Amino acid sequence: MKTQVAIIGAGPSGLLLSQLLHLQGIDTVLLEAKSPDYVLGRIRAGVLEQGTVELIREAKANERMDRIGHVHDGFSLSFNGKQERIDLKGLTGGKTVMVYGQTEVTRDLMNARAAEGAVSIYEAKDVQLHDFYSDKPRVTFVKDGETIELECDYIAGCDGFHGVSRQSVPKDAIKTFERVYPFGWLGILSETPPVSHELIYANHERGFALCSMRSDVLSRYYVQCPIEDKVESWSDERFWDELKARLPDDAAASLVTGPSIEKSIAPLRSFVAEPMKFGRLFLVGDAAHIVPPTGAKGLNLAASDVHNLYHVLRKAYHDGRTDLLDQYSELCLRRIWKAERFSWWMTSVLHKFSDDAFTQRIQLAELDYYTSSVAGRTTIAENYVGLPYERIE
Amino acid sequence: MKTQVAIIGAGPSGLLLSQLLHLQGIDTVLLEAKSPDYVLGRIRAGVLEQGTVELIREAKANERMDRIGHVHDGFSLSFNGKQERIDLKGLTGGKTVMVYGQTEVTRDLMNARAAEGAVSIYEAKDVQLHDFYSDKPRVTFVKDGETIELECDYIAGCDGFHGVSRQSVPKDAIKTFERVYPFGWLGILSETPPVSHELIYANHERGFALCSMRSDVLSRYYVQCPIEDKVESWSDERFWDELKARLPDDAAASLVTGPSIEKSIAPLRSFVAEPMKFGRLFLVGDAAHIVPPTGAKGLNLAASDVHNLYHVLRKAYHDGRTDLLDQYSELCLRRIWKAERFSWWMTSVLHKFSDDAFTQRIQLAELDYYTSSVAGRTTIAENYVGLPYERIE
Repeated sequence: MKTQVAIIGAGPSGLLLSQLLHLQGIDTVLLEAKSPDYVLGRIRAGVLEQGTVELIREAKANERMDRIGHVHDGFSLSFNGKQERIDLKGLTGGKTVMVYGQTEVTRDLMNARAAEGAVSIYEAKDVQLHDFYSDKPRVTFVKDGETIELECDYIAGCDGFHGVSRQSVPKDAIKTFERVYPFGWLGILSETPPVSHELIYANHERGFALCSMRSDVLSRYYVQCPIEDKVESWSDERFWDELKARLPDDAAASLVTGPSIEKSIAPLRSFVAEPMKFGRLFLVGDAAHIVPPTGAKGLNLAASDVHNLYHVLRKAYHDGRTDLLDQYSELCLRRIWKAERFSWWMTSVLHKFSDDAFTQRIQLAELDYYTSSVAGRTTIAENYVGLPYERIE
Repeated sequence: MKTQVAIIGAGPSGLLLSQLLHLQGIDTVLLEAKSPDYVLGRIRAGVLEQGTVELIREAKANERMDRIGHVHDGFSLSFNGKQERIDLKGLTGGKTVMVYGQTEVTRDLMNARAAEGAVSIYEAKDVQLHDFYSDKPRVTFVKDGETIELECDYIAGCDGFHGVSRQSVPKDAIKTFERVYPFGWLGILSETPPVSHELIYANHERGFALCSMRSDVLSRYYVQCPIEDKVESWSDERFWDELKARLPDDAAASLVTGPSIEKSIAPLRSFVAEPMKFGRLFLVGDAAHIVPPTGAKGLNLAASDVHNLYHVLRKAYHDGRTDLLDQYSELCLRRIWKAERFSWWMTSVLHKFSDDAFTQRIQLAELDYYTSSVAGRTTIAENYVGLPYERIE
């Protein structure tokens, strides 16, 4: 079996990359260890940067997103009994974000890819990467009991933090940077109207809370919780009480509660692997870096890696510019570190870390300064809508 | 002995306050435990915000400052082999800072006060504050072996972090917030031309360094050092070698070295006491709050407290607006916490804290983001020149 680009992992970044390359006439094979239903069952982020939206449009997987996604012009920060709006559109010269669930993005890309008749191999077991430091990389996997070998020009590792791609790299070729946060996010999905038409990020002495949404009738709420907590110890009633206690009075009073249809606790982690290119293997998205969810950068960072890899591969195949391939890590990492910084900062100012009184006052002073200064608000807005992509030339 | 406002401490904030009140016809007595020469021997900060400069002008102690002080339109941040300029004037709509040593400010205020014939009592020993929760506060002290009682309307505690004023407040009436940093600043003064006509703040893997100056022929340089270090273990040669190693190549190459005429190690501390008014006692400057020197906010924060106390006392005496006195803490503290935040942030991004690789990369990402974004640079500039004073009305 042969292809030009073997793509490991059929989450949104693998799907997006394969679809973009396919539309440029570059042949890809997409390998995924799980089933399509499993992939679609993962509930993740729901805020798309404008650059991500544009890339989805370029992949021609935008019809449903543009029809039912919600464009948001701003969001709110709540702290110290106040609620301050960040006017994304006004502060960035017109940029906005799109609220549209990652699950929906994945579904749309799956459908677009199927419509194009491109090859996706689900439930590919025991995926192994070979010879990616040579000119003839290979991927082997087991499908329906049979071992298959896939020859290719390049391998794109889009298989997430726990995937095989990063683990295939020699230990001494990679340097990793990590921060684990001492708390988790307890999230629920409920078929209730969102408490606000824009997101509310709340700093509260009881801990962080976030009001988000998927649609006019589907809300997504989170509260910071001890990382050791079990979902079973959080009844719906306890969750709603805790959420209300952390929200501004207006929001708490108008919150519509209902049974949760999903409830889970997620850890928070910052992680970066450097470099992101190893011979002919390229790491993309969560395979190379993780951000805590505060600031909604995870999927968007994966999309900016896809953007970079898509363009360097396109220029390599179409214009013979194979030199650009060597710039992939550098193109990605400068923007990644800025997004890591923003996610770390949003996490740092919004969560309860310790009982240290100085730390708590500095948090409030950060929120007070950044929301009371136009320059401060602009730093938040320009990061939230997404910093510009690096130019590839 | 009687006065309207008893001022404890004849450092720059006590002197400035007494001079401003004196010019408004409000009688003050200034008590200082040390001699004038001792006070003038303390080498401190040298960067004045525009608001501080204007207050010194209002105190008519500006002639020499305006003649020999240097207006700076910008400064540089050095990191990762790069040097990025913060254009203070361009980013803040014309605001600048004045480089003029705290020692000189103190001398000018002493001279201005002497010229007015106002009362200053130096070497006042065993200063004690009495009855400041009543309508008739008193201060007692020992001068030349004799105990003297000073009756007054109000007491201004301008006697610094270790002074008696804050220590006179009942423990349960005050809340303190503190952060001690795990390193010190080794500083030298040398009669050499400054390496740059603007300040350079350097983040380096060996630790922080700062190039500052007092005049065209007097340089002030600092390097981060272990807090346990002794001055004796730092020869001039060792200091210059370490400084050069931490500077950008251009600066290191053009650095003119020479014998140090002063050398000392200072600890770094963040500290805030709340509130700042206790009956008829008002804390001012270092008596209520300390910042690490990164960002040069110490003297300037004291000046903004003086500004607030001067105006609320002036309105109380001249317009009968004694209600404003109760706003003193609130007027001061919001701006103080923003300056604490900025000083903490400058300290955090510029010093070496640990060998943790994630922390180091986040530092560089902070510097990269903030210097590469106009909004980011503006947040630095507007804090460095000084956030606006609160309006008193």
